[in-house]
Amino acid sequence: MSPSATRSNPPRVVIIGGGFAGLYCARQLRGAPVQVTLIDRTNHHVFQPLLYQVATGGLSPANIAVPLRGVFRRQKNVTVLLGEVTDFSPAERLVRLADGGAVEYDYLVIAAGMQNFYFGRDEWAPHAPGLKTLDDATEMRRRILSAFEAAEREPIFAEQVKWLTFVVVGAGPTGLELAGTLAEIARDTLRHDFRRINTQKARILLLDGSDRVLPTYVPSLSASAKRQVEALGVEVRLGTMVTGVDPEGVRVRADGVEQLIPAKTVLWGAGVVASPLGRKLAAATGAEVDRAGRVFVGDDCSVAGHPNIFVLGDLAHQIWRADQLVPGVAPAAIQHGSYLARLIRRRIEGRPTPPFRYVDKGSLATIGRAAAVADIAGWRFSGYFAWLAWLLIHIFFLIHFQNRLLVMIQWAWNYFTFARSARLITGRSRDASSPP
Amino acid sequence: MSPSATRSNPPRVVIIGGGFAGLYCARQLRGAPVQVTLIDRTNHHVFQPLLYQVATGGLSPANIAVPLRGVFRRQKNVTVLLGEVTDFSPAERLVRLADGGAVEYDYLVIAAGMQNFYFGRDEWAPHAPGLKTLDDATEMRRRILSAFEAAEREPIFAEQVKWLTFVVVGAGPTGLELAGTLAEIARDTLRHDFRRINTQKARILLLDGSDRVLPTYVPSLSASAKRQVEALGVEVRLGTMVTGVDPEGVRVRADGVEQLIPAKTVLWGAGVVASPLGRKLAAATGAEVDRAGRVFVGDDCSVAGHPNIFVLGDLAHQIWRADQLVPGVAPAAIQHGSYLARLIRRRIEGRPTPPFRYVDKGSLATIGRAAAVADIAGWRFSGYFAWLAWLLIHIFFLIHFQNRLLVMIQWAWNYFTFARSARLITGRSRDASSPP
Repeated sequence: MSPSATRSNPPRVVIIGGGFAGLYCARQLRGAPVQVTLIDRTNHHVFQPLLYQVATGGLSPANIAVPLRGVFRRQKNVTVLLGEVTDFSPAERLVRLADGGAVEYDYLVIAAGMQNFYFGRDEWAPHAPGLKTLDDATEMRRRILSAFEAAEREPIFAEQVKWLTFVVVGAGPTGLELAGTLAEIARDTLRHDFRRINTQKARILLLDGSDRVLPTYVPSLSASAKRQVEALGVEVRLGTMVTGVDPEGVRVRADGVEQLIPAKTVLWGAGVVASPLGRKLAAATGAEVDRAGRVFVGDDCSVAGHPNIFVLGDLAHQIWRADQLVPGVAPAAIQHGSYLARLIRRRIEGRPTPPFRYVDKGSLATIGRAAAVADIAGWRFSGYFAWLAWLLIHIFFLIHFQNRLLVMIQWAWNYFTFARSARLITGRSRDASSPP
Repeated sequence: MSPSATRSNPPRVVIIGGGFAGLYCARQLRGAPVQVTLIDRTNHHVFQPLLYQVATGGLSPANIAVPLRGVFRRQKNVTVLLGEVTDFSPAERLVRLADGGAVEYDYLVIAAGMQNFYFGRDEWAPHAPGLKTLDDATEMRRRILSAFEAAEREPIFAEQVKWLTFVVVGAGPTGLELAGTLAEIARDTLRHDFRRINTQKARILLLDGSDRVLPTYVPSLSASAKRQVEALGVEVRLGTMVTGVDPEGVRVRADGVEQLIPAKTVLWGAGVVASPLGRKLAAATGAEVDRAGRVFVGDDCSVAGHPNIFVLGDLAHQIWRADQLVPGVAPAAIQHGSYLARLIRRRIEGRPTPPFRYVDKGSLATIGRAAAVADIAGWRFSGYFAWLAWLLIHIFFLIHFQNRLLVMIQWAWNYFTFARSARLITGRSRDASSPP
C-alpha cells in the first residue's frame, strides 16, 4: 500500500496558470490520488501560437481557446478557480487571492508565464499593444482594421500615410508572424475592399535592435526568414533601437541617428518579462530570480529549499545543457507539465523522482502564407515545406481542442479564398488616441 | 436611351445602416447605374436572429457577422463608409457625419433600425444589457459566464443564490430565446463544470407586463411557447411590470404588490425604440414619427413631401393592411431593401414605381433545443418540427455568409455534444458593479 493511501485526505496540488504547463500538468494528473486546484485569471486556455491569427482576423477567439472548466468537466479531481493570486505563504502552505480568499496546498505548482515588457517604459503600452491574451489579440485586430478605415476617411494625404504605416517592434517569432500576416492582409485580403486608398501601398516595418531577425535561430535561417518576410513586402530594419512610442509614431535610433517613424499603429512583439508572481515567490521562499524575473529552479523544477514548490514553463529559469536554459517555448512548457505530474505521482508512491530532461523538438517560425523556417533535429529548411510542417504540427497540437476540425476548415477556407472572415471591429478602445 | 444615361455622373444613393434593409438594398443595386455609399457605425453586418447564440456562447461573433467591405468588395458601385450620421439637410441634399464630414445624395435611404429602450429609465441600462450589437452580445456572454464563476467562489449562500438568479425582462422572441438557452446552459452545458455549485439549481425568470409570452403571436402559440420554456425550467411571470433595476436585482409590481427579485444578472429583452435618426429626419423633413420614434412613410417607403428620401426596415412606420403595420422583422426589412433597389432602378429608367407590398412569410420563434413555435401561412405548429423549420430557414438565410458551412458544423457539434465552445469571458466590464 502506498504511503498516501493511509492519509485521510488526498494531497492538495495547487496549480497557478492555465497555460500549456499548468494545463498539461493538471491533465496528466487524471486519476491520480490528488486533489487539484487550477487557478487562472481567465476562464480559458489559449493556444498561444495562433494568437496572431486572431489579431489579424483569420481566426475567432473561440477557435483557439477552450474554457478550462470544459477541459476538466469529467476529471473530478480538478477544481478550476477563476481568481488572481497575490501572494504566497510557504510557512502556512497557502496561496492568497485578490478577493481575500486563500487556498492551501501540499504541492504548489506555479506556471504563471510571461507578460508584455516595454523595457521599463510602461507609458508606451497604450500606444503599442502586445500579444499575450485574447483581449490583447482583439485589441490588435480592432486597431489594425480601424487604421485602414481611418485612412479611407482621411482627406489629408500626409495623415492617410500615417494610418497606412504599421510598425511591428521586435523581430522574434511573434513580430515576424504579425508583420508577415499584416503584409498579406494589405496586399491580398483587403485589396478590393476600399475605394479611396490602395491598401497595397500600406507600409509595414519590422524593427529589431539585434543584427538579424529570429536572433535565437541559426544565422542561415534568420537570413532566410528575412528574405521571405521582405518578399511579402515588409521593410526590415535591424540594428534599430526603439527610444520612444507615442501617438505620433515610433522614435528610433540606428547608427547613432535618431529618427521618428510617423505611424498610427504600433504592435509590440519585442519584450516579455516574467509574471510578477515570480518575484513574489522569490521573496516568500528566498529563491533567486534572473534579470527577466524568472525563478531559478533545480533539475526537478523545484525551488531551492522548498521541495514541494515548483515553477514550470516560461517562468522557470532552468539549466538545460552547458550554458543554455530550457527555452520559453510551448513544447518545453508541455514537457514541464507532464514531467511534474509524473513527479507528483512518484512522490506519493514513495518512488524516486528522476530529473527533468528537456527534449528539443526543434524550432519552427511562420512568416505568412507558405512562408516559414524550420530547424528540426538539425534539419534546416524554409519556405513552403517549413510552412507545411508548421501547419501540421500546430493542427496536431490543437488535438485537445474540440473545434480543431472547425479551425482546419476555417483555415483552408482562408487559404484558398484569401479571406479573413473574422475581421470584425469590436470592443472599445483602450487608448483615446487610437482610431474610433 | 434612359434619362439617366444623359447625366455625366450617375445618381448618388446614400444608404444609412448596414442591417438587413440597407444591405439588401445595396446588394440589389448591383450593376445599376448608381453610385452607392453605405454608411454604418460598425464595419460589419450582423445576422441579428442569431445574436442570442453569441450571447450564450454557442457561436462566435465571426460566425454571425460579415465585414461590410467583404460583402461589397466586388460590387464596384458601392463605397462603404464607417461613420456616424448626425444630421440631415434635405435642402442641400446632404447627410452630416460626426467627424465633421458630409455626404451628398440624390436618393437617401435611412435604415438605421432600433435600439434598446428602458422605458425612459436609462439608469437601468448598465445593470441590464440589451441585445442589438455584437458588443452587446459579448457583454451578455461575459456577464452570464462570470455569474456562474462568482457563484462558485462565493462562500455566503444567500449571495450565491443571487449569482445563480438570472432575470430576463421581456417575453418577446429575444427574451424567450435568451431564457430558454440560459436554462439549457445551466441544466446541460455547465452541468459538470463546477465543483461547489449545482448549476441545475440556477433560477431563470422570464418577466413580462402582458398576460402572455410572444404577445404578437396567436394565443394558442403563446400558450405552447410558455409550456415549452417552462419545461426547460424557466419561471415565467406574466402581468409583471418592472419598476426598477439596480445592483440588488429587479423590482417588480404584479397584482398591485411590489417585490424585489434579488439577482446579479439581468438581461434586457423588453423594449426597443427607433434610432434617434428617425426624429432627426422628422425635424429636417417635417415628417411625423410615432410614439416609438418610427418615421411615417408612404406605400413607396418615401417620406411625405420628399420623394427621394426613404425609410426602411424597423425604422419605418408603414401601413400594411387594415390597422396593421409592416412588422419590425428581418423578412420585412429584406423585402423593403429589395423593393427600394427596384424602385430606384425604375425611377432612373423613368418607369412607374408600384407600391411596396409586404408578403407575410409567417412567424417563427425559437425557445431552445428542439423547442419553437411557428405560424407559417396559417399553419401553426410547435415543438421539434417548428424548431427544425426555424433552423432550416435561418441556415438558408445565412446563405450570404461565407461561413455558413462552419456555422452548421459548429451548430451540429453543439447539438450533439451539448457543448458551447465559445463560452469565453473576454473584454472589460461595462459596469463596475458586475462580476470581475
